[in-house]
Amino acid sequence: MSVTPSLVADLVGVAVFAASGASAGVVKRLDLFGVVFVGAVAALGGGIIRDLLIGAVPPYAFTHWEYLVVAVLAALLLFWLHPQFNRLRRTVLVLDAAGLGLFTVTGTLKALDAHVPAVGACVIGMISGIGGGLGRDLLTGEIPVVLRREIYAVASLLGAGVVTALARVHLNRPLLITGTALLIFVVRLLALRRN
Amino acid sequence: MSVTPSLVADLVGVAVFAASGASAGVVKRLDLFGVVFVGAVAALGGGIIRDLLIGAVPPYAFTHWEYLVVAVLAALLLFWLHPQFNRLRRTVLVLDAAGLGLFTVTGTLKALDAHVPAVGACVIGMISGIGGGLGRDLLTGEIPVVLRREIYAVASLLGAGVVTALARVHLNRPLLITGTALLIFVVRLLALRRN
Amino acid sequence: MSVTPSLVADLVGVAVFAASGASAGVVKRLDLFGVVFVGAVAALGGGIIRDLLIGAVPPYAFTHWEYLVVAVLAALLLFWLHPQFNRLRRTVLVLDAAGLGLFTVTGTLKALDAHVPAVGACVIGMISGIGGGLGRDLLTGEIPVVLRREIYAVASLLGAGVVTALARVHLNRPLLITGTALLIFVVRLLALRRN
Repeated sequence: MSVTPSLVADLVGVAVFAASGASAGVVKRLDLFGVVFVGAVAALGGGIIRDLLIGAVPPYAFTHWEYLVVAVLAALLLFWLHPQFNRLRRTVLVLDAAGLGLFTVTGTLKALDAHVPAVGACVIGMISGIGGGLGRDLLTGEIPVVLRREIYAVASLLGAGVVTALARVHLNRPLLITGTALLIFVVRLLALRRN
Repeated sequence: MSVTPSLVADLVGVAVFAASGASAGVVKRLDLFGVVFVGAVAALGGGIIRDLLIGAVPPYAFTHWEYLVVAVLAALLLFWLHPQFNRLRRTVLVLDAAGLGLFTVTGTLKALDAHVPAVGACVIGMISGIGGGLGRDLLTGEIPVVLRREIYAVASLLGAGVVTALARVHLNRPLLITGTALLIFVVRLLALRRN
Repeated sequence: MSVTPSLVADLVGVAVFAASGASAGVVKRLDLFGVVFVGAVAALGGGIIRDLLIGAVPPYAFTHWEYLVVAVLAALLLFWLHPQFNRLRRTVLVLDAAGLGLFTVTGTLKALDAHVPAVGACVIGMISGIGGGLGRDLLTGEIPVVLRREIYAVASLLGAGVVTALARVHLNRPLLITGTALLIFVVRLLALRRN
């Protein structure tokens, strides 16, 4: 497996979403395995749904063990290193925003590469971004975050639209990924700060 | 894309299920995006699961933007036009019954066309019919409607069985779709009235 | 369809998981259809997810009616024959442990046969084992069992690892399936007894 910009962005997204899921598990006072499990679902769930939707089976997360290892390590790190419960809630939200940006962008690009039309690719990008968090929330019995905060999936959709438009211009890929992921991240953080 | 009877029935089903999901979101007092999101899940969820099960990927809803547009518009319309909360609960149930009929029939036919054997095609038809509502209920934290009301999935299964039997007789398709969808709709409404 | 050791183990797993799901439905005082529905989800859910992940569509449960019939019959039997509610809770746990062992082993083997790499095959085996129970718990509004009991998914993963290691030695298949399924069953029962 060659190290592409898309792979690096994907693995960073896996790590931050795993930490986000693990934080949610810690907040719910789950034991070690529960924390790692929710972390792995949050980290890999969106990408697995994406791969099922574009017919890329077995999904990437099952054919490349690096994904699972990164997810488990990030969840374990969070479990052992987390300082206090109070500060965690904010950490979850920031990590979640970063994962949202990265997964939306790589998901949209994978859908476009699989020849999904523009509108569908944007939605698949959004699902890649919000799918893991949705699984995390369903598992921990929370009302899904996407239903409660208007500028969550909307930030993801906006970014997916920008990716789809710019992908046609054949922009430099690392630049495209970094820029649009950052855009989603910032929009999401601004929405968080406003509340 | 050519306008077939199956497509028209499918899009009508999308619209009524989107309105059903949106009503559920309004009842739960979700904001605009939440209402549209639950509407889209209710409208497209059953068909997406159906397409994954018969290996038709990317699912139709992602390759034909009309589906998403119809779902979003129907959800928006319901959000803006709904009169009072009291009357909505009944509207949800009637729209839901119509969507159940239409999606069961088109889902069963798609499974049969994909050479799924009779029993499996009936179950896939039922899943097409109940899948969106199941997603809607899980997202809004309700006990799924299919577990509470005996004549819901049973009405869907009954209709799927009739479709499977009649599909072998090579009946006129528009007639077959309309007739069996209506059968499920009526059985479901009678069950509602009995309670 | 020829009667292979893998098929027999799969159908026994379907029956015990269906009974496990049906017991959960009885405990929740669902009506007949609800009990059968939860039983079928518990029995077939893990295998359907497994088949979607390895690209074996339509999933086996939809192309071989024996699966659905065994699931429905087992759920009906439990519904009619269950003695008292008190004794049921223990029965659910024991049946669940047996299903966990059988589904993990057959799921791991199917993933390996579909050329999924070792780590991914173990995870798919675990998902085959825990997927049905996860669906059962989500449907009945329970916190998933896999998040609450540390030695549940871990027992499944352990067994999947042993299967993966032994599959390379080309051991006798019926022996391999029986032995490792029994290993998971015993580990799970010991964990239950310790609590």
